[in-house]
Amino acid sequence: MLSAEENKLFTSVGAATPLGTLLRRYWHPVGVSEFVTSKPQRVKALGEELLLYRGQSGEAHLMQLRCAHRSLALDYGRVEGDCIRCPYHGWLYDASGQCLEQPAEPEGSGFKDKIKLRSYRTQEISGLIFGYLGPEPAPLLPLYDVLRWEDGVKAIQLRNVNANWLNHVENIVDISHLAWLHGHSFPAYGAKKVTYHWDRRDYGADNVMLVDGVRDDDTHISCYGFPLTNRFNVPPVTPGGEQVRTLLYRVPVDDVSTSLYFVRFTPGEKRMLPVSVRQEKLGEYKHLDSDWWGIDNSDQDRMAIEQQGIIADRVNEHLSASDGGIILMRRMMREALAAIAQGQDPLCVIRDPAKQQVDFGQRSLLMDQRQREGNYAGGFGRAMAAVD
Amino acid sequence: MLSAEENKLFTSVGAATPLGTLLRRYWHPVGVSEFVTSKPQRVKALGEELLLYRGQSGEAHLMQLRCAHRSLALDYGRVEGDCIRCPYHGWLYDASGQCLEQPAEPEGSGFKDKIKLRSYRTQEISGLIFGYLGPEPAPLLPLYDVLRWEDGVKAIQLRNVNANWLNHVENIVDISHLAWLHGHSFPAYGAKKVTYHWDRRDYGADNVMLVDGVRDDDTHISCYGFPLTNRFNVPPVTPGGEQVRTLLYRVPVDDVSTSLYFVRFTPGEKRMLPVSVRQEKLGEYKHLDSDWWGIDNSDQDRMAIEQQGIIADRVNEHLSASDGGIILMRRMMREALAAIAQGQDPLCVIRDPAKQQVDFGQRSLLMDQRQREGNYAGGFGRAMAAVD
Amino acid sequence: MLSAEENKLFTSVGAATPLGTLLRRYWHPVGVSEFVTSKPQRVKALGEELLLYRGQSGEAHLMQLRCAHRSLALDYGRVEGDCIRCPYHGWLYDASGQCLEQPAEPEGSGFKDKIKLRSYRTQEISGLIFGYLGPEPAPLLPLYDVLRWEDGVKAIQLRNVNANWLNHVENIVDISHLAWLHGHSFPAYGAKKVTYHWDRRDYGADNVMLVDGVRDDDTHISCYGFPLTNRFNVPPVTPGGEQVRTLLYRVPVDDVSTSLYFVRFTPGEKRMLPVSVRQEKLGEYKHLDSDWWGIDNSDQDRMAIEQQGIIADRVNEHLSASDGGIILMRRMMREALAAIAQGQDPLCVIRDPAKQQVDFGQRSLLMDQRQREGNYAGGFGRAMAAVD
Repeated sequence: MLSAEENKLFTSVGAATPLGTLLRRYWHPVGVSEFVTSKPQRVKALGEELLLYRGQSGEAHLMQLRCAHRSLALDYGRVEGDCIRCPYHGWLYDASGQCLEQPAEPEGSGFKDKIKLRSYRTQEISGLIFGYLGPEPAPLLPLYDVLRWEDGVKAIQLRNVNANWLNHVENIVDISHLAWLHGHSFPAYGAKKVTYHWDRRDYGADNVMLVDGVRDDDTHISCYGFPLTNRFNVPPVTPGGEQVRTLLYRVPVDDVSTSLYFVRFTPGEKRMLPVSVRQEKLGEYKHLDSDWWGIDNSDQDRMAIEQQGIIADRVNEHLSASDGGIILMRRMMREALAAIAQGQDPLCVIRDPAKQQVDFGQRSLLMDQRQREGNYAGGFGRAMAAVD
Repeated sequence: MLSAEENKLFTSVGAATPLGTLLRRYWHPVGVSEFVTSKPQRVKALGEELLLYRGQSGEAHLMQLRCAHRSLALDYGRVEGDCIRCPYHGWLYDASGQCLEQPAEPEGSGFKDKIKLRSYRTQEISGLIFGYLGPEPAPLLPLYDVLRWEDGVKAIQLRNVNANWLNHVENIVDISHLAWLHGHSFPAYGAKKVTYHWDRRDYGADNVMLVDGVRDDDTHISCYGFPLTNRFNVPPVTPGGEQVRTLLYRVPVDDVSTSLYFVRFTPGEKRMLPVSVRQEKLGEYKHLDSDWWGIDNSDQDRMAIEQQGIIADRVNEHLSASDGGIILMRRMMREALAAIAQGQDPLCVIRDPAKQQVDFGQRSLLMDQRQREGNYAGGFGRAMAAVD
Repeated sequence: MLSAEENKLFTSVGAATPLGTLLRRYWHPVGVSEFVTSKPQRVKALGEELLLYRGQSGEAHLMQLRCAHRSLALDYGRVEGDCIRCPYHGWLYDASGQCLEQPAEPEGSGFKDKIKLRSYRTQEISGLIFGYLGPEPAPLLPLYDVLRWEDGVKAIQLRNVNANWLNHVENIVDISHLAWLHGHSFPAYGAKKVTYHWDRRDYGADNVMLVDGVRDDDTHISCYGFPLTNRFNVPPVTPGGEQVRTLLYRVPVDDVSTSLYFVRFTPGEKRMLPVSVRQEKLGEYKHLDSDWWGIDNSDQDRMAIEQQGIIADRVNEHLSASDGGIILMRRMMREALAAIAQGQDPLCVIRDPAKQQVDFGQRSLLMDQRQREGNYAGGFGRAMAAVD
C-alpha cells in the first residue's frame, strides 16, 4: 500500500510536481506524422496544453499553446512558413518561439525581441512525433527495436484510457493477470498455475511468467521500458504467420486520462497502414459473449485499468507475491525521483549514442502454441486482416 | 431555519458522517428481486458503492464493490456458486466476503485467509431486497402492512429524484402542500382552508389534515415511517374500485440524489406486475396543460423537491405553523442522533419480534369523495390500467 | 499584467464581491420585451438567480427567484394579476415582493406581513427590459442614442459568450485587433499599419484607430460606455444603404458566462424585427473557408474572447502599446471601486436628467469605404437581408 501522500505524488503529472518533473526528463509521443500538417493543433501532455504544427520545412514544431500577449490559443492561428501567427493581433512567432512581428506596435519598438514562447524539441520517426519537455541538454531518444524495423507491415493505433497513467503502468508490470483477465483468449495459460519473477534491465525490467507443467521453452516475457513503455507480441494475423511485434507508449494527458500509442510490426513486405484512432468512453467495453468476463480481449486491459477507479485507491490495496513487478516499478520511480533531486540523470536516460539502439528480450512462445491450435484471431489480428 | 452547519449535518449521508451513521442503523431497499440475478451489479446507497448479486442458493448478496487486492470493481467479475470472482487475477470471495482463492499466490500461502471484504446482511420480501449496512446485532426489518399483504395486485416502481434525501422527507411530513401543489387534481381539498396536526406513533408520525367545512370523517392522514418511509393511498384505478395502498421507501444514493421504491397494492386476485423503472432528469417534468402549474401530478412532488435546490438552503427558510411536521421530524432526527451518541438504539429500531408487524393509521377519505365524482385517473392509475 | 488577486477581483461578479457591488450600481438588460409574458421565467445576472414576469398591468417585475418559505423556485409558480403565487403552499407575493397570502396559516396570522422577497426596479425601453440590482436611490438609465431612435428598422439579437465578462470588455477597448482578427473582412484596414489612441468621455472612452496612408477623414472610432457597453457601426445591409448603428450590452451571467444584447438600428421606415436568439457553444465557431482564420466574422470576436481561456490568465499577459485601452479601462474600474469604497457614486452614474440622453462619438468611415467597394455583406447584414 501507499500512503495517501505517496499515491498523490505518484499520480500527479503537472509541470510543478515532482513526478511531472521526472517524466519531463524523457521523450514522449505527442502526435502521429500522418495527422500533423500546417493546420495547427492543440495537444495535451503531462497536464500541459501545447501547440503542434508542421512548418513548410516539413519539420514538426511544438510549443506553448497560448500567445504571450493576451493568452489566445494559437491553434486558432495560421502557419506561415515555419512560423505561427496569432489571429488576434497578428503577433508572429518562429519555431523557436521567438516573437518576430507585433504589427500594431509603433515602428522601431523593440518589445517583440523580449517575447519568446516556451518551445520544445521534436523528433519524428516511424510515424510518430516525439517531444521533449524537460531541461537541456535533451537526452537521446531510445531507438526501440520496433521503431527501427522497416522490412514489414507497420501500423499505428491511437487509443485513450480514462484513468491515471499509474493504473496503466501497473498493468504492464503485473504479469500474472494474463492467466485470468486474458485467460479465456489464451488457453495456454488461462487459469493455469503460474510462477513469475522480474529482472531489471538497462531499459527497465523484464516481466517473466512460467506456467506450471509447460516446458521451459514456453516462458512468457513482456518487457517494461522505464518509465512508460512496454513491448509484447500478439498472435499472428493469419494462421502460421508471424507474431505481431508491439511497442506501446503511454502518455499522461493529465492526472485522469492517458493516451496510448501502439506501434505494430509484422515482418514482410514494407508497408505503413493508415493510422487507426478510437476515442474510448469510460465504462463502455466491447461485449463478447464467449469470454469469461463478457468483454472482448482488446478492451480487457482498459476495463481493468479504468475500473480500479480513475486514480486507484492504493491506500486500501493489498499487494501480494504476484505484485513483485509493481513493487519493483515503484522502487525504480523512487530511485529516479531521488536522482533528479540530487541533480543526476534518472534511470534509463540515454546519452551515449552507442546505447541508443534498444532491443527488448521479449518472448511469447505460449502464444505460438496458442496459434498452432489454429483457433485464435485477436482484436488487432482482425483489424489488420480487415485492412488487408 | 437551520444553521449552515446543521443543514450540512442533516444532509450528509456518507459512512463517516453522523447522519450517515444514524441511517445505517435501519434496513433500506438496495434492489428489486426481479432484477437481481447471477450477473453482479453495482449499486450505490448512503454514499457507498456496493456489489449486489444472487448466488446459486437463490440468496442475494451485498458487499463492498471493490476487490481488496487492487480495487477492481467486482461488478465486472463472475458469480461462481454463491461466490464472486475478480476478473483481474481471479481472487475468489464467498458471500461473507472471505477470500477463498488467490490463484497466482505461491502454493501454501496463507495470505488469502487475511483478506475479507465488508459484506452486509440482506433480506428479500415482497419483491424488494433490503440491506443492512450498520453494526451488529442487526435490528428486525419492519414488516409494514403493504409488504405483508398478498391477496391482490402488487406493483413496484423504481424512480429517482435529483435532490438530497432531506428535501424529500420534508415533503412527506408537510401535509398542507396537498391543498396547493396537488390541489387541481384533488378538488376535495384544492385551495381549501385546511388545518393540520401531527401525532407521534411507534413507527414515526401521522400527518393529519382537515378541510374546513368538510365532515369530520373526511380526515386525511398520511403516515411517516421514521426515518425514510411513508404510507399513503392513491385513488382507485377503475371507477368504484379500491384505493391503491402505497408504501414509499427513499434511499439516499449520495448527498445529491435519492432512489425511490414505490410498492403499490390493490386488494383482489393475487398478482405481481413487472417492475417499472424510470430515470428522471433534473428539471424535466411531464407537462399537463390543464393543471394549475402545468405539471402532471405524478411529477409535482419531484418538481417541488428538486426545485428547492438540490440541497435546499435551510438557512434562509421561513418555517410557519403549517411546518409543524418538519419541526417534529427534525426533532426526531436530533433525538436519534443523540441516542446513538450515547450507545443506545435510535427511535423506531425494532428488536422485539412481537412488534415487527407494523400497521399504519393511514386514511384517505377525501380521495374517495374525489373518486365518487368519477373524473380522476392519476398517473399510477393510468399505468396500472394500461398494464391491465 | 495583473496579480492573481487582482485578476480574481476583476472577474468575480457575485453580490458579495467588490466588483459585483460596483456593477450593481448600473442598470443592465435582464430580458427582452417580446419574450417577457405572464409565464414567469428564471434569469441569471451578476451571479444571482432572478424571477422575471409581466403582470396584468403590463409592467415587468424582477425579484429574487426563491420563495421565502422553503426556497421553491418561483418560475414554477403562477402569475395572478401583478402577483406571483408559489406552487408549493400557495404563498402569494405582490410585485414589490411583499407576501400577501399564506393559505395554510391559521386565520388572523400576521406572519405574512413579515415576509418580503428582494425585488428590483425595472424599466422597459426599445424592446429591452433593464433591471437595477443596487442600493437606492437608483440612478437614471442612460438613454443611449440607439435606444432613443425610432425612425427606422430596429433589431435585437440575444447571444452568449462562454467566458468571463472581462475578456469581453477588454475586446471592446482593444481597437487594433480590427486590423488582424477582422482584417480579411475589412480590407480598408486589414493587416495595415495602424495607430491608435484613447480619449476619456463622460460616457466612458473613445477608441480611436488611424490607418497609415489613409486620409484623416477615415478615422475609425468605436465607443466604450462604462462599464459594459459599446457602440459601433457595421456595414449597410444593401449596397449604398446606411450603416447599421449597433449598441451592445454585456451582462455577466456569472463568472464564466456572459449574455450579449445587440440593438441594431438603420434609419428608414419604422419597424421592429423579431428578436433573434442563438445559444452559442464553447469552441464551436461558424467556419468560413475564405477568411484568414477559417471563421466567419460574426464569430471571430467570440472565438478570441473564449479562446483566451474562460477567465483569461492575466498574470502571464504581456501588454503592449496597443493595449492602452485595456490599461485605461482597468484604471477606470479601479477609480470606480475606490469611489464606492468612499461612499460616492462611481463614474458614469447619471443622476441629472439633463445628462440622461447620451450620444456617442462613433465614426466608421473606413467601413463606408469598404462598402463603396461593393463587395461586403456582413453576418448581420445577411440576417437583416434575409428577414427583409
